[in-house]
Amino acid sequence: VDHFGFDINKTFKQRYLIADKYWKKDGGSILFYTGNEGDIIWFCNNTGFMWDVAEELKAMLVFAEHRYYGESLPFGANSFKDSRHLNFLTSEQALADFAKLIKHLKQTIPGAENQPVIAVGGSYGGMLAAWFRMKYPHLVVGALAASAPIWQFEDLVPCGIFMEIVTRDFKKSGPNCSESIRRSWNVINRLATTSSGLQWLSEALHLCSPLTDFQDFRMLKDWISETWVNLAMVDYPYECNFLQPLPAWPIKVVCQYFKDPKVSDQLLVQNLFQALNVYYNYSGQVKCLNISETATSSLGSLGWSYQACTEIIMPFCTNGVDDMFEPRSWDLEELSDDCFKEWGVRPRPFWITTLYGGKNISSHRNIIFSNGELDPWSGGGVTKNITDTLVAINIPDGAHHLDLRASNALDPKTVLLARSLEVRYMKQWISDFYTRQG
Amino acid sequence: VDHFGFDINKTFKQRYLIADKYWKKDGGSILFYTGNEGDIIWFCNNTGFMWDVAEELKAMLVFAEHRYYGESLPFGANSFKDSRHLNFLTSEQALADFAKLIKHLKQTIPGAENQPVIAVGGSYGGMLAAWFRMKYPHLVVGALAASAPIWQFEDLVPCGIFMEIVTRDFKKSGPNCSESIRRSWNVINRLATTSSGLQWLSEALHLCSPLTDFQDFRMLKDWISETWVNLAMVDYPYECNFLQPLPAWPIKVVCQYFKDPKVSDQLLVQNLFQALNVYYNYSGQVKCLNISETATSSLGSLGWSYQACTEIIMPFCTNGVDDMFEPRSWDLEELSDDCFKEWGVRPRPFWITTLYGGKNISSHRNIIFSNGELDPWSGGGVTKNITDTLVAINIPDGAHHLDLRASNALDPKTVLLARSLEVRYMKQWISDFYTRQG
Repeated sequence: VDHFGFDINKTFKQRYLIADKYWKKDGGSILFYTGNEGDIIWFCNNTGFMWDVAEELKAMLVFAEHRYYGESLPFGANSFKDSRHLNFLTSEQALADFAKLIKHLKQTIPGAENQPVIAVGGSYGGMLAAWFRMKYPHLVVGALAASAPIWQFEDLVPCGIFMEIVTRDFKKSGPNCSESIRRSWNVINRLATTSSGLQWLSEALHLCSPLTDFQDFRMLKDWISETWVNLAMVDYPYECNFLQPLPAWPIKVVCQYFKDPKVSDQLLVQNLFQALNVYYNYSGQVKCLNISETATSSLGSLGWSYQACTEIIMPFCTNGVDDMFEPRSWDLEELSDDCFKEWGVRPRPFWITTLYGGKNISSHRNIIFSNGELDPWSGGGVTKNITDTLVAINIPDGAHHLDLRASNALDPKTVLLARSLEVRYMKQWISDFYTRQG
Repeated sequence: VDHFGFDINKTFKQRYLIADKYWKKDGGSILFYTGNEGDIIWFCNNTGFMWDVAEELKAMLVFAEHRYYGESLPFGANSFKDSRHLNFLTSEQALADFAKLIKHLKQTIPGAENQPVIAVGGSYGGMLAAWFRMKYPHLVVGALAASAPIWQFEDLVPCGIFMEIVTRDFKKSGPNCSESIRRSWNVINRLATTSSGLQWLSEALHLCSPLTDFQDFRMLKDWISETWVNLAMVDYPYECNFLQPLPAWPIKVVCQYFKDPKVSDQLLVQNLFQALNVYYNYSGQVKCLNISETATSSLGSLGWSYQACTEIIMPFCTNGVDDMFEPRSWDLEELSDDCFKEWGVRPRPFWITTLYGGKNISSHRNIIFSNGELDPWSGGGVTKNITDTLVAINIPDGAHHLDLRASNALDPKTVLLARSLEVRYMKQWISDFYTRQG
């Protein structure tokens, strides 16, 4: 449970998945998925890329679950009980878990010992893959860090960039789309001034629980914002189910309801409902919208909320001009107080860059940073080559780690290109490893 | 206090020393001593090399004290109270302290921000310097790791090598020297079989407290062994006071008492006393020998005993053939039980190599590993170049990090050469840094 202290000598069961169908003991490799904030089976099922390249790389696939997510709970049902039980939920502990797991696999699987391991991850898992290569270069020959916003910390990138990219996605997915959304906030605000307005809003949006007070109203707006953010993340070129079941290019579908800039307030809200319905009810089975949920329950929202209160402090802001949201500045103090109330801990916003180097990472080698240009997380990502071996691969038509998804007939050419480049680098790392071994 | 967990938000005062006499804001550098297991003032006073090169490198000197040593006690007088208070004494926490201190200095000392930092350390501090460069390459451009036995773990080197080197030092410092010492153990053992023998032994060795039982007797032998080890470490070419005040080439002085292979048992013990007296009473002021002390009290023996029970698990063994000691195998279980009794913790002997890479460190850059060939710790050190930028400097006539000591008229040529090479590498790192800055 605690790699970095000796007082607690407790252990826990970490879940991992292995596939060795295409693995070759002779000249093979190991692709190691550095699990992120959720159930590892779900990530495994959404990382088809690893399955698609397994044969070519003669690779064993390993998917390691991140502690405090899925079934890898250090204290079982008590894991989220209080700050004492949560104390071992950090990226450093997770990386140390991965290190020990790799050593364990190499010691116990005959033929694995002298094979190169490549870390693969997306999003927070992509950050972990990159950080793992930085901190444990003796265990992995390289890392594919897909959609990893390793620079979304401190002031390494402007805090507004994330929402600007979300806005850009809506802007280009339909005429008047981002403008209509920008306008919607004022409409909602006006309706919320009266209780009859709130009631009408609740009904027009088919909410499961009617809005009753100011706090509900704040929550509604956050929920709507997060919906647009999530849509930007999963604006994939084909029908699929990642955060939610969705049509191909879902933002285009959403934007069909935001074409007319001159509709009445009420019609705008009714259109807003239709738009939200694309995200929350593509199946047509949903009876009402629940503003306390925005994505799949395979993501561990409790654990992530704690991590976002401790290490993973990412400044976000909006100004309503360069983006389609209500202006909101980054308020560390407010976050800190909220975190203390919720978890009894306070953020350490400068720690991640102290530990992992911030922008000063050029002494490392063999990391691919891939980013989809539709993905708001690309704003905090590495989108330019740093050195010959710390390379950026940008995917103009890609959303959040599209490259890690299984190959699809509707994939844009740019992601095919990205994947083939990624494979080329990985093969290079593998052959360099075997050359060094002699 | 805890860089790796958020439940405890306590801080502590870390002591550090700064000298900026030769520091230049224009084109200068920062030499950062990664403090080891003792009082930082003592290390500062025994690291004349940094003072000697400060002007040439336009360097600010910083000496950072290691947590749990000197005055840098996280819980004041309670720091060593129990395993709960000791839980934050690890190399990882110490490196994180150094990282935060460097960031603090760069933020608060005008002119320091855009200067290259070089980590310098000896012995355990040398391991820390090397590990710091490995784990925080964004904070230091390189490291001088003097007499750093980073491979004295697991089975990376033979467990007997350390005592073999000690023995070699004695063997070549006088005829019959190591043979006499090898013989001495049996003589002592024979005497210890009777209580009158024990009493005679206590008197002949001028012990402050007479030996009364088997445990005392074990302690006596460990104390004598450790004395020979310490002498091998500080077999310097000139009179000085590091672990104890000593003459030049102290082993030669000691070996004058072990010339005759055929003396009686009693004379051998009397000679043994004279030899021990060289180490413990060079000043001539000491009235009796205390077998519970072997070195300066500036070293923090409590803290080190804990570290040697947790992370710093170095296998040692002797066979009495290749070395001059009684045969003793490496017994991890015994150590583990002793550690649990003393500190309530158990060793994790595989952790250091998992964390820092063991022999597989070739992906790192800009570390100098210097070793004196007289130094028993060189057995676990890096004594061959690993790559162009991970280089070994061997000093045939050097004992434990002689190169870090102040220049002395009696220095052998080999250490002068080593120091000039070290300066050349450091200058290269500094100029590379400024070249990259453009």
